[in-house]
Amino acid sequence: MKTYEQTKSRELFLRATKVIPGGVYGHLGPAEGCFMPVHSYPLFSSRAKGPYFWDLDGNRFVDFMCAYGPNILGYGDPDVNAAALEQLKMGDCVTAPSTRMVELAELMVDTVAMADWAFFCKNGGDTTTFALMIARAATGRDKVVLTRGGYHGVAPWTQKLGHPGITAQDVADNLVVEFGDYEALERVFAENKGRIACFLSTPYHHPIFEDSRLPPRGYWQKVRELCTREGVVLAIDDVRCGFRLDVQGSDAHYGFKADLMCFCKAIANGWSISALCGVDSLKEAAGSVMYTGSYWLSAAPIAAAIACIRKMRSMDVAKVCTSKGRALTAGLVDAGKRHGFDLVVSGEPAMWFMRMADDYSGEIHQAWVAECVRRGVFFVNHHNLFINAALSDEDIAWTLDVANEAFEAVAKNGTEAGGNGR
Amino acid sequence: MKTYEQTKSRELFLRATKVIPGGVYGHLGPAEGCFMPVHSYPLFSSRAKGPYFWDLDGNRFVDFMCAYGPNILGYGDPDVNAAALEQLKMGDCVTAPSTRMVELAELMVDTVAMADWAFFCKNGGDTTTFALMIARAATGRDKVVLTRGGYHGVAPWTQKLGHPGITAQDVADNLVVEFGDYEALERVFAENKGRIACFLSTPYHHPIFEDSRLPPRGYWQKVRELCTREGVVLAIDDVRCGFRLDVQGSDAHYGFKADLMCFCKAIANGWSISALCGVDSLKEAAGSVMYTGSYWLSAAPIAAAIACIRKMRSMDVAKVCTSKGRALTAGLVDAGKRHGFDLVVSGEPAMWFMRMADDYSGEIHQAWVAECVRRGVFFVNHHNLFINAALSDEDIAWTLDVANEAFEAVAKNGTEAGGNGR
Repeated sequence: MKTYEQTKSRELFLRATKVIPGGVYGHLGPAEGCFMPVHSYPLFSSRAKGPYFWDLDGNRFVDFMCAYGPNILGYGDPDVNAAALEQLKMGDCVTAPSTRMVELAELMVDTVAMADWAFFCKNGGDTTTFALMIARAATGRDKVVLTRGGYHGVAPWTQKLGHPGITAQDVADNLVVEFGDYEALERVFAENKGRIACFLSTPYHHPIFEDSRLPPRGYWQKVRELCTREGVVLAIDDVRCGFRLDVQGSDAHYGFKADLMCFCKAIANGWSISALCGVDSLKEAAGSVMYTGSYWLSAAPIAAAIACIRKMRSMDVAKVCTSKGRALTAGLVDAGKRHGFDLVVSGEPAMWFMRMADDYSGEIHQAWVAECVRRGVFFVNHHNLFINAALSDEDIAWTLDVANEAFEAVAKNGTEAGGNGR
Repeated sequence: MKTYEQTKSRELFLRATKVIPGGVYGHLGPAEGCFMPVHSYPLFSSRAKGPYFWDLDGNRFVDFMCAYGPNILGYGDPDVNAAALEQLKMGDCVTAPSTRMVELAELMVDTVAMADWAFFCKNGGDTTTFALMIARAATGRDKVVLTRGGYHGVAPWTQKLGHPGITAQDVADNLVVEFGDYEALERVFAENKGRIACFLSTPYHHPIFEDSRLPPRGYWQKVRELCTREGVVLAIDDVRCGFRLDVQGSDAHYGFKADLMCFCKAIANGWSISALCGVDSLKEAAGSVMYTGSYWLSAAPIAAAIACIRKMRSMDVAKVCTSKGRALTAGLVDAGKRHGFDLVVSGEPAMWFMRMADDYSGEIHQAWVAECVRRGVFFVNHHNLFINAALSDEDIAWTLDVANEAFEAVAKNGTEAGGNGR
């Protein structure tokens, strides 16, 4: 297998740095770049289809980042795009919303187990901030409990003091516990009795640079009881894993019922829309909060979401992604073993995290990921990965071949393919 | 002229209230609704084209809200949509951005007078929050000066204490001055010396329920000097009037140079994208802030923005909109006079505000707006209005006919057509 060259990506990156801070933002930008073997990465794409994208040099990648989640049915899914384009002919961003908005709200209420209502925005972070505002409006309390390392967008209140641009006021009402530690949560609730508006958490823990952690048995059921008892709104950030674990919501997957659920990413297969679902008792508070945006009524992304949710339901997309994820991760672990590497897989199969055992600095894992990327399998070393339903058995088999060859290369060359920066 | 019935809109609204908090959010929702004659309004649209949209009952409206700003070239502009759809075929929301992102940044740097770089998000509010974070990162200071009644999105820090869901911490670093009052600004700067990161303001003042106010002569030049002297970042929120006053930016229109400029709305004729432009000295700070979103690299809205900006430049859209706005507002004032009403027009012609003189409660104005809406001219009574370039001379003439008939109806029937609520 030949390894890829990315000459054109590098050239465009230099052009980009002149007119965009950092050149490319997000995980391949300067902040994260120093922890990733970015020199092996395609920094730009020229086209995308199904489970693949191509870089500017024409190299094809089987993409396990899925645009960081949105790609669940395959890039350019014909059913989703047809629905959006049909609506676009009628109208998209118009002064008054279309019937589609009501239809999508009805569909979400019918699909998401906990949902009595739905509200649509653009970013995942729009929904987490709205959840907090609703909880504050409903309870008259200020504080929010978060989990250490949990990601809820980029609004100042979701970031850490010490991050550039964040002030002490931004995070003054935040309390932090470890994910899955019920006793710690109970303690924080007791210490701040009557002052906590909201507990906001992902359904399972998927931080960066760390193993994902599933909820301990009975954890969510106890948390649900505690929140109800203490009058705290239980908000679940399902932005990243929503629809990949269960189209009914990840709370349903883990056997509990959230008060508010944040959705984005997979909801419309890449069209710009996010959604907050809630229970009836919070509907009035939701309506009382001033919350709107320039494109929030846009009908084309709403039509895309309707088509995407219908298709996800009819194909049972969570089952499909979970099954493909199991096959792939089992194969990757086997391939590692064959070359003496102990690949550690955590999280849910449809959205798993990888690292190497006994690789404290992460250099071996980083080198292996770089060898995979240079052969056309888009993995990252620091973030969970994503399965999409367009991945075929052949794609998985091919990915395992690449992974095998990459392990062989690391066994032979050591960590030289890794290394940071540009 | 017959007046419209909106039976189907009302029916759908009842369906909407079951699954969406408030039924329809934004200005026609419950919070604002009580200040508007909402019973006369079409709450939903079935299609939109050029300067028009149609409600569910098939009534056509000449739309002077323009989706609250995004519609600048006419709904469904063929050039903008063709560019977006061409890109959609190649790829939209993909793990790695497309070349289009760099091209748009280059185009904005070439178009916007103050811009050395550009960064793309989804909401207007994403850019105002980013501007504040950059200012804080660059200056190491916390406070922000805002103008009373200025609108900068819905993030908690942009709202007022007392709004549902807003805490004292959210707004603890905000200082407020009257728009256009240079001495007040100087005083606030002196009282908080070395503690102010940013002055964030719209280029001219366009609050709701109040006359718009243009900057006093020399105001922005003095503010520019003061900010430079005090090391305060001057950020201009051009989300609402950006491109309608001058494609080079509204700071250029008023003869000064901002440090950061927030764009959204008209930038892509309704496709979901916003942009922050900045000067070189803030580029590193911008790159240091953690700021990203699920759909921020999406290439179709970026392609739409490229096509929209090119078209706005080639047709000199600000001049076109200003000229149409002047003709329309002059005609409206004349029509009012003919029936003994003194219509007061403020703001810029492309984005004007209306009220009636000697109408303290606003009831006469509200009744006249309701009579216009019921005849197919979409005005609102509480918010500035917008001109789009697709409006023909015939549309303007027809609007003036409707306005005339509406004045006649108010002269005859008094304020009975107004009235609030549903």
